[in-house]
Amino acid sequence: MRTINIGIIGCGVVGTSFINQLHEKHQRIIDEFNIDFKINAILVNNTKAKRAIPKSSPLFNFGTENIITNDSEKLDESEIIIEVAGGIEPTYQLICNALSSGKPVVTANKALLAEKGSELYSLANQNNVDLLFEAAVGGGIPLVRPIRESLAVEHIDSVKGILNGTTNFILSQMTQKSISYEDALKQAQELGYAEADPTADVEGYDAAAKIAIISLLATGTKASQSDVYTKGISSISAHDISSAKDLGYVIKLIASIEDKNEDEVILRVEPTLVSTSHPFSTVNDGFNAVFVKGSKLGETMFYGRGAGGDPTATAVLGDLIDAGLNITHTRKGATVGYEFDRKVADPHDWVSKFYISLTVLDEPGVLAKIATTFGENNVSIETVRQNGMGDSATLALITHEALDAHLQKAVGLLGYLGCVTKINSVMPIID
Amino acid sequence: MRTINIGIIGCGVVGTSFINQLHEKHQRIIDEFNIDFKINAILVNNTKAKRAIPKSSPLFNFGTENIITNDSEKLDESEIIIEVAGGIEPTYQLICNALSSGKPVVTANKALLAEKGSELYSLANQNNVDLLFEAAVGGGIPLVRPIRESLAVEHIDSVKGILNGTTNFILSQMTQKSISYEDALKQAQELGYAEADPTADVEGYDAAAKIAIISLLATGTKASQSDVYTKGISSISAHDISSAKDLGYVIKLIASIEDKNEDEVILRVEPTLVSTSHPFSTVNDGFNAVFVKGSKLGETMFYGRGAGGDPTATAVLGDLIDAGLNITHTRKGATVGYEFDRKVADPHDWVSKFYISLTVLDEPGVLAKIATTFGENNVSIETVRQNGMGDSATLALITHEALDAHLQKAVGLLGYLGCVTKINSVMPIID
Repeated sequence: MRTINIGIIGCGVVGTSFINQLHEKHQRIIDEFNIDFKINAILVNNTKAKRAIPKSSPLFNFGTENIITNDSEKLDESEIIIEVAGGIEPTYQLICNALSSGKPVVTANKALLAEKGSELYSLANQNNVDLLFEAAVGGGIPLVRPIRESLAVEHIDSVKGILNGTTNFILSQMTQKSISYEDALKQAQELGYAEADPTADVEGYDAAAKIAIISLLATGTKASQSDVYTKGISSISAHDISSAKDLGYVIKLIASIEDKNEDEVILRVEPTLVSTSHPFSTVNDGFNAVFVKGSKLGETMFYGRGAGGDPTATAVLGDLIDAGLNITHTRKGATVGYEFDRKVADPHDWVSKFYISLTVLDEPGVLAKIATTFGENNVSIETVRQNGMGDSATLALITHEALDAHLQKAVGLLGYLGCVTKINSVMPIID
Repeated sequence: MRTINIGIIGCGVVGTSFINQLHEKHQRIIDEFNIDFKINAILVNNTKAKRAIPKSSPLFNFGTENIITNDSEKLDESEIIIEVAGGIEPTYQLICNALSSGKPVVTANKALLAEKGSELYSLANQNNVDLLFEAAVGGGIPLVRPIRESLAVEHIDSVKGILNGTTNFILSQMTQKSISYEDALKQAQELGYAEADPTADVEGYDAAAKIAIISLLATGTKASQSDVYTKGISSISAHDISSAKDLGYVIKLIASIEDKNEDEVILRVEPTLVSTSHPFSTVNDGFNAVFVKGSKLGETMFYGRGAGGDPTATAVLGDLIDAGLNITHTRKGATVGYEFDRKVADPHDWVSKFYISLTVLDEPGVLAKIATTFGENNVSIETVRQNGMGDSATLALITHEALDAHLQKAVGLLGYLGCVTKINSVMPIID
């Protein structure tokens, strides 16, 4: 049997859950994998804080009071580093130190990977050492491993994902209870689904960070969060939700990767109408789901709890066992396909069906003018539905597949038609 | 770079697709993994048959005419064996020979694993060699690897799956087009979704074989197809489908594993009412999906094309790369948790909500008699709906959660009530 010392950076919700799971599974891991993991350091800011971890355990060589530390040099005696602290600094430097000295790193840090991913993957590769991050995207859903390993040489045509639990909870509440965005956000905050400052979630930045990480994995495209064309959900109204419902759709915040050509991929995050016959339409509340379309595999979907201490910690534990086995068998796991170095394309060079909601004057010839504006810009209309009459009629339009650049141009020109008093919303559609 | 000779048993739909994918990806695999796979033998029954594989390729050291053979001794020069032939003999013997001589085996053979799985896993383990079978369950869906690796030490509470594409196609057609079972089966046969003799699919045996394989992987329970309590779909009527629809459900053939206690698990395959708000309800036609519930992870679902040459071959290719990397890095992949040796429990010792459809005489007091029979057997009724009037009224009942043994007893006693003229169907419910 081989003893492996591990050092943990951070001891919050995920860290606590991870330590408890490792404590519970300690003997089973010995039996099954012949590895005796010992925790020799837990690096935290406040060593005095109360923590819900075992006081004594076969995991600890010494009592926990000797292991919880704010001295990062204690990590020098660890063979594997687990990073569950979050944030960019000092974690980035600590992870660089570990990788440079040939130590495998398991991280759950989405923000760091979205910002510094390509540097870290390169460093791991230069040092021929594992950098594992199943927990950074989709919580406990096994997603990174299948893409890295099972689909290692499969050509990925597209990825579409519901990657943010907060926005999915808010949109689910708006749909199920017919309440406003503001009321749904308030509920989400009361239930702990949303932060006091919900910006990172509701404006789509969190989903953008996750799709940036997946873009490197699945398509070899280096991108950070800011490279992703991003629209949030804060302007979605109860009217948008009910209008979508009438047409057989629900609204979801969808993050997407689309293969454009050998050199470029399109990355987008935006509210999207999803047909109620599509599997995404049943992904509600805090659940996440990712559709991966491979050229030979066809469509495959991964679904599960995208956040939470226990689910996320199961992913960290799976990665730790992998890193441990790679040490005991002197092998390194699959590398990330960073060598492709594809670029992020113009997000408007993208084809989709679209939904457009307009407030118009109720007078003869309005529809003809609108249809002409779309037609002259190569956008063809599939369905029109008029709601309400009198001064403030609303029109819901669904287009055939159209180039986003054409659609944006047509929508821009609608403002010059006197009969269109307001453009309420423009969203892509998944059928 | 390391050259690895591989021998292929079988060259049907999956074998042909696999050889073409390996041909296409040959250079990429060299670039990414530093392994030059060569095919040195393709073992077939009829060496003269026409095959849609490249005439020449960097995969072949010699022309294909020298590689296609009916002499199994040619496999002796291969380092990895790929089995895509199907059937129990002679494949079982050939795989045993390979494992005994320390050669990794990749197989897509569901029937063989369901029948001889535990012997093969033991043999692989004794010889410290890989036996990989991602393609045997769920076609190209990455499912076996996440369960074997990501969830290696996670406690699996339950697994529920739509594992048979033929029956899912038939049930989807019956639901979408309101046609009879017979007409849907005929369509499935015309489109190549069902065999001329559809028994193995429609009676649930194929799904039972797959859930037996998953039971060993996920719960350490040795089971073969015949250990699974199995009901097929051939008695599902258009009335069952429409009655389910009225209540907000669709009918799916569900294979399930339920943890009973430390020693036993329950294995079942049967038509089941699935709520239209459940992700399973959008899994249609030839798609498969598997829900895995872990005690820490919560629920996760894997979805994709469960069959077909190209998707299945992507899974074979992923396993081949894994086996190749394990050779070049002198390591062996995760073992199957056969050491638990749990048993298959009484399938009726199982708790679920149920749907019961009865034809009854339309006379006073009928409902009271039926409710009393259920109540006396500890089954409580949640909803009752009566359809039609006059001589042949039908009652649709939905129970609260009940023990299947109690339910079966109550249903048996209904036959003694003069007012119940026919028990149309009894199915569990997933909400």
